[in-house]
Amino acid sequence: MKFTLTEKIFSQRLGRNVVAGESILVSPNRCLMTDGNGPLVVKKFKELSDGIAKVKPVIVVDHHGPSPRMEYSNEAVELKKFAESNGGWFFKAGTGICHQVHAEKFVCPGDVVLGSDSHTVLAGAFGAFATGMGATDIAAALATGQTWMVVPSSIRVHLNGELPLGVTSKDINLHLLRLLGNSGATYKAIEYTGSALRYLTMSDRMTISNMSVELGAKVGLFEADEVTFEYLKHFGREDSFRPMCSDPNANYEREIFIDCSQLEPLIAKPHSVENIMDISDVIGTEIHQVYIGTCTNGRLEDLEQAASILDGNTIHPDVRLIVTPASHAVYQAALKSGAIEKLVGAGAVITSPGCGACVGIHMGVLADGENCLSTQNRNFKGRMGNPDSSIYLSSPITAAVSAIYGKITDPREVRT
Amino acid sequence: MKFTLTEKIFSQRLGRNVVAGESILVSPNRCLMTDGNGPLVVKKFKELSDGIAKVKPVIVVDHHGPSPRMEYSNEAVELKKFAESNGGWFFKAGTGICHQVHAEKFVCPGDVVLGSDSHTVLAGAFGAFATGMGATDIAAALATGQTWMVVPSSIRVHLNGELPLGVTSKDINLHLLRLLGNSGATYKAIEYTGSALRYLTMSDRMTISNMSVELGAKVGLFEADEVTFEYLKHFGREDSFRPMCSDPNANYEREIFIDCSQLEPLIAKPHSVENIMDISDVIGTEIHQVYIGTCTNGRLEDLEQAASILDGNTIHPDVRLIVTPASHAVYQAALKSGAIEKLVGAGAVITSPGCGACVGIHMGVLADGENCLSTQNRNFKGRMGNPDSSIYLSSPITAAVSAIYGKITDPREVRT
Repeated sequence: MKFTLTEKIFSQRLGRNVVAGESILVSPNRCLMTDGNGPLVVKKFKELSDGIAKVKPVIVVDHHGPSPRMEYSNEAVELKKFAESNGGWFFKAGTGICHQVHAEKFVCPGDVVLGSDSHTVLAGAFGAFATGMGATDIAAALATGQTWMVVPSSIRVHLNGELPLGVTSKDINLHLLRLLGNSGATYKAIEYTGSALRYLTMSDRMTISNMSVELGAKVGLFEADEVTFEYLKHFGREDSFRPMCSDPNANYEREIFIDCSQLEPLIAKPHSVENIMDISDVIGTEIHQVYIGTCTNGRLEDLEQAASILDGNTIHPDVRLIVTPASHAVYQAALKSGAIEKLVGAGAVITSPGCGACVGIHMGVLADGENCLSTQNRNFKGRMGNPDSSIYLSSPITAAVSAIYGKITDPREVRT
Repeated sequence: MKFTLTEKIFSQRLGRNVVAGESILVSPNRCLMTDGNGPLVVKKFKELSDGIAKVKPVIVVDHHGPSPRMEYSNEAVELKKFAESNGGWFFKAGTGICHQVHAEKFVCPGDVVLGSDSHTVLAGAFGAFATGMGATDIAAALATGQTWMVVPSSIRVHLNGELPLGVTSKDINLHLLRLLGNSGATYKAIEYTGSALRYLTMSDRMTISNMSVELGAKVGLFEADEVTFEYLKHFGREDSFRPMCSDPNANYEREIFIDCSQLEPLIAKPHSVENIMDISDVIGTEIHQVYIGTCTNGRLEDLEQAASILDGNTIHPDVRLIVTPASHAVYQAALKSGAIEKLVGAGAVITSPGCGACVGIHMGVLADGENCLSTQNRNFKGRMGNPDSSIYLSSPITAAVSAIYGKITDPREVRT
């Protein structure tokens, strides 16, 4: 039998062969939770169980940290108690975005991970089946030690060729959104492969896996290869590595071929992730805030790309440039590399690691009528805290260049 | 005639000699406003005037930046319009705390400055009569170009001798609060002098001037000397300098002599700034959050003092250490000096320049029952956003050491 990566992960986890379409009960390696809906998970768990959790919870304060309200502060205290009394892990505000923290400290190829946040799919970049579920689903998994799932069929995306200068992995996501729309991969596993994997770093892969959920996908998978190994090694976790890849000639529902060398910088216009435009169609759009960060594009490479553009420049006086490193480790690395100093030198405001402005709770809520160019994954109406504002999505490179000019700018026109 | 520094400033500003007790009308050099009560000032101004402001406003977004709510975001847009249409200056979120921004970019010795925030007194460190007033007072000054005042009588505080290791300018403030209480200098000008001025940097002086308002003082003044000159020069403003000092044998209501060499690290216990304890009386008190920042103690020297203690150490796992540079310039300097890297290396979370956690609006609100050790100026019940939490005040040195141990710790016991 030939298996997709999804089928292989579940077959290994269950100790028997399973294929797409089959309903399974599976025990996740861990449940990832945040202060966002973690309190609801705990509440539901207590309704379902009076024992201790049968899956270890990893809880990260990322939505409301450092806390903007005492209710959130109190919830964080309760989450810490829950994690500690259930043999899990608790990470205080400033440690980072849960998905980034999970990537740095926990995920292993072949893992099955459930998360109470939809962007749990980021961990697919490591060859792990990681997916988001509702609070009650997570509570049930914690209470029973298992979850049920239909093994999803897979779409294979072949990424071939080299990205041109000024075009990044984020533009691959935006291109796929143009191609498939926001429900083109609903309940499917996407498996990314192709010659481009040679140069797609873990940071790139995490970006691509992360935004797979915007296509409706249950997971966005990369094979675990030497790039994965090096990343794990960097965080002292080389022992966590095992190679994971699909079998040649496995059964895919659909195959999509993308010639990366033909891609251009793209923009998702308000108020939908599938509202994709060539950058040439939106050039000159006035922007009031530029946001670089999030689980999509808040890693060292993203910050360094932005810093290299902003180094020696000054942002437009009417623009607020907010940069949020995805984790404490990213922030430390960006301090060491000099990226933070370059960003601050250009006029950026660095906020503490976490979800920050992306979730509309604090640290960058927009005013009425304002436009924000953001590297985040969603531009839904009101996402950043104000339904009367507009969010455009782009790569960190496009965002950084645009911050200088105060309007959406094609990064290829200003890069030397 | 012999003049106090206060009398001299007003006499020069008015072009005629005035003495304490006299009621005067005076035209301020500028009005300092924030997004805290700036919107109320603008509202009142529009009730009082349909023209343009007769005093130039300097408006800094520091209380709610980056914005945690769209209402604040909209107010910031209105404040920008107000500043620009009245020939003033507007500084967006992340530029810093208004008082620090004012010190770096505006204040000159001999100035008369009104601010809508009580800690406007910080500028007294430059030999400027700077004082906080209510929103309607500021609106009236903007509308008429003048304000009325009774020239305050002066208390002269002689700071002599050298501070011992582990004791800082903040402890001078706390000592004065023990001595005078929170209303011991109500409507008085405090004039700081003495042999200690030799080693009291501008950062120290700003700390001391800043907290003078906690004693009830209208202003806390230092003479403008070569230390002042060097600071102004550092910010490219050496032309703003003019020497300002009181006359020998001027008329003081009271003189207080402090031997700095005898001071010890002090703590203000909850919930009053005059609830001063020797550190030995509170050693071991459990703390959940340590906050280093604010207009009192968020400058480069403060961050460097904390960094030198935390360098190579790790904060207690149950403590959140939040550090907020007082301005963008401070943040840049602390990046360059390596202080930020040391703080982050020890586990600190750096938030963006502004009032941050001190005003209880965002970026560090406490949970019920938690204790915070903070370098800020006020520990009133609920000040940090939760009336069921407790705030202890200390120097940055005491705060940094205590962050390592998770309890209030005497910095002299661990410094080598």
